Amino acid sequence: MRLTQNLLLPIAAMTLLHGGFVSAYDGLVEKKVFTMPTYTTVGGTTLNDVKVGYETYGKLNAAGDNVIFVPHFFTANSHAAGKYRESDGASGYWDPIIGSGRPIDTDKYFVVSADTLVNLNTKDPNTTTTGPATINPDTAKPWGMTFPVVTYKDSVRVHKALLDSLGVTKLQATAGASGGSIQAMQWAAEYPDFVLRVVHVIGPGFAIHPYVIELVDEWILPIKLDPKWNNGDYYGREEPQDGLAQALKIVTISTRAFGWAEKTFGYKWADPVKDPAAAMDNRFAIEDTLNKAGAARAKSIDANSMIYMAKANQLYNLGDDVKKMKAAILFVPAASDGVFPPELSKRAAEMYRAQGGVAEVAVIDGDGGHLDGVFNVAKQGEAIRAFLAR
Amino acid sequence: MRLTQNLLLPIAAMTLLHGGFVSAYDGLVEKKVFTMPTYTTVGGTTLNDVKVGYETYGKLNAAGDNVIFVPHFFTANSHAAGKYRESDGASGYWDPIIGSGRPIDTDKYFVVSADTLVNLNTKDPNTTTTGPATINPDTAKPWGMTFPVVTYKDSVRVHKALLDSLGVTKLQATAGASGGSIQAMQWAAEYPDFVLRVVHVIGPGFAIHPYVIELVDEWILPIKLDPKWNNGDYYGREEPQDGLAQALKIVTISTRAFGWAEKTFGYKWADPVKDPAAAMDNRFAIEDTLNKAGAARAKSIDANSMIYMAKANQLYNLGDDVKKMKAAILFVPAASDGVFPPELSKRAAEMYRAQGGVAEVAVIDGDGGHLDGVFNVAKQGEAIRAFLAR
Repeated sequence: MRLTQNLLLPIAAMTLLHGGFVSAYDGLVEKKVFTMPTYTTVGGTTLNDVKVGYETYGKLNAAGDNVIFVPHFFTANSHAAGKYRESDGASGYWDPIIGSGRPIDTDKYFVVSADTLVNLNTKDPNTTTTGPATINPDTAKPWGMTFPVVTYKDSVRVHKALLDSLGVTKLQATAGASGGSIQAMQWAAEYPDFVLRVVHVIGPGFAIHPYVIELVDEWILPIKLDPKWNNGDYYGREEPQDGLAQALKIVTISTRAFGWAEKTFGYKWADPVKDPAAAMDNRFAIEDTLNKAGAARAKSIDANSMIYMAKANQLYNLGDDVKKMKAAILFVPAASDGVFPPELSKRAAEMYRAQGGVAEVAVIDGDGGHLDGVFNVAKQGEAIRAFLAR
Repeated sequence: MRLTQNLLLPIAAMTLLHGGFVSAYDGLVEKKVFTMPTYTTVGGTTLNDVKVGYETYGKLNAAGDNVIFVPHFFTANSHAAGKYRESDGASGYWDPIIGSGRPIDTDKYFVVSADTLVNLNTKDPNTTTTGPATINPDTAKPWGMTFPVVTYKDSVRVHKALLDSLGVTKLQATAGASGGSIQAMQWAAEYPDFVLRVVHVIGPGFAIHPYVIELVDEWILPIKLDPKWNNGDYYGREEPQDGLAQALKIVTISTRAFGWAEKTFGYKWADPVKDPAAAMDNRFAIEDTLNKAGAARAKSIDANSMIYMAKANQLYNLGDDVKKMKAAILFVPAASDGVFPPELSKRAAEMYRAQGGVAEVAVIDGDGGHLDGVFNVAKQGEAIRAFLAR
């Protein structure tokens, strides 16, 4: 069932494998960690010992210029493709388009993905990030809500340092879905001579939309209502898991659509002998399943980090930096997306063309909502392949 | 600003005027109260002294058959048109289409609207309802979450008793928006020989959609997360106003759309000297305004009633009763509606035609979302007028 894939995908319970050098993608993936001794945020706070996890697939060429960077979406981590072990139940979330012979062809490209700052999945051993759950060296306690505001631009700058450390000289493309699409675009604005192409899948265009500013506010409000959140000061005690579970439920509903609900659940009751009309606590299957999935998913997530990540999304706005961009852009919206509807991509493509840029649009058909850009991205796999070869 | 209209509309701080007889609509409206000594719910619980408020506009003819019943939407009450006093700031929510010479012409029709059971606005003196905030005569305390589950069918049956008491013999139409559209349809299924036409504005068709079952679950989850909700046992103490305010905020976002957010707020900050990028607590205008509006609106609302009303929406499903329906139906979806998208109306119209019924569809253009069916219903006013004359 798609649902499980959606909610549980980034929490394969694996041992974290740290590696000191770049290994080729041979079907098995190694999680590595990149460390910056010091990084100063866009907002001006200097952080020490900044760490992010990353994965690579394929081989870097001698020129260091056969590279595609794949930033991840809101609830994900850098496990974009492959498996850590043959026995893994699932592969990385974009596995259908990343690999040998696939649209993002690892026979040709060296593909890198990295965990963002303030990544949500702090309790997943395959995620490494720096954020509110990280120990503040000045207090020897987690930062909590005293962690500085970070933007996606901060993650991009840290990831640029990672690519520099790997010997990358040029990005053939940045390619990401949703929050990953935002970072992919931010890359091209920040490093216009370094990034040749952007594959912007289920993205907002050049700025978050005001409607979505409020939507992500809605996503995190359950956390803040949970008294265990305690203004972010919960480390070492009971955490706001109820609020977090409900927050994740709202994210799921926002990122899905009518067709998905109809096909996956219909009017089924949670319990065949408990008619929802008979008692206030009797539920429909869709409610019950999403409650349980949210609670399960919450186990690997840090509540404060979700609040920080929401903020990073709200702050995405390239403004006049769009004018500096040189990359060609492929917009890949999903037809039934209620978060970043195709109109946003079409509007951005028009605007980019008007300033002389190259922009193409390839829509993913389907009724699965926003997440069609994750689970059904292969529907536009050939458009992506062709765009990378242009 | 539309927003204020949306959130504050049903809480004009007016004195409740009880009236014992039907008065003509002359531009000033009188709120009256209908009492049923006893009513047994569809679920089998007998309630005593069931009261609902109602309003009428226009004059009942001698035959009692020039009547249009206007059930109200989720957060509204029976103030569909007119003003209580000349000095009122706003008229009833559908005033642009109800009145002398308007599409629902009070020179011709006797229009009745009534508060549902479990109406949300228990603290608004112009709302009278029976629900969880009502005193249970057996305990002399409010029912709270021990109130029986009620469906829209229950409200329809109570409203039928009201119409019987007024001498109504036939409904030229039932006409409502959203939750009101559901009741309008339920009327035609429950009383197929009594209802000639249904005007189903921004409605789901013949059943709630599974996606919306979950959406309304999302609407009420903030209430349940507020510790002051206390499983519904809060009467006489501090009430879960924080959760309620956030719940109402989610309803607003769900029932609005991208164009509305863009035009009303854009990227404005809540405070021009507090850059949202500078601190976690600095907000955008859309967040701040909706927080404040939700908190203001929450003052007139009972949290448990909102949970009961959500349940009533989830349970709407005519099932095979559709086959008994005889009324002609005008579906009036709103183009940018994300709650009940136009596709649902089109699908239902097709289904109704397939069983030999008369169904028309008239779409309200606009980018205001679901609430275009409340605030911009007049865009299809002439279609409604023509349908009523068919």
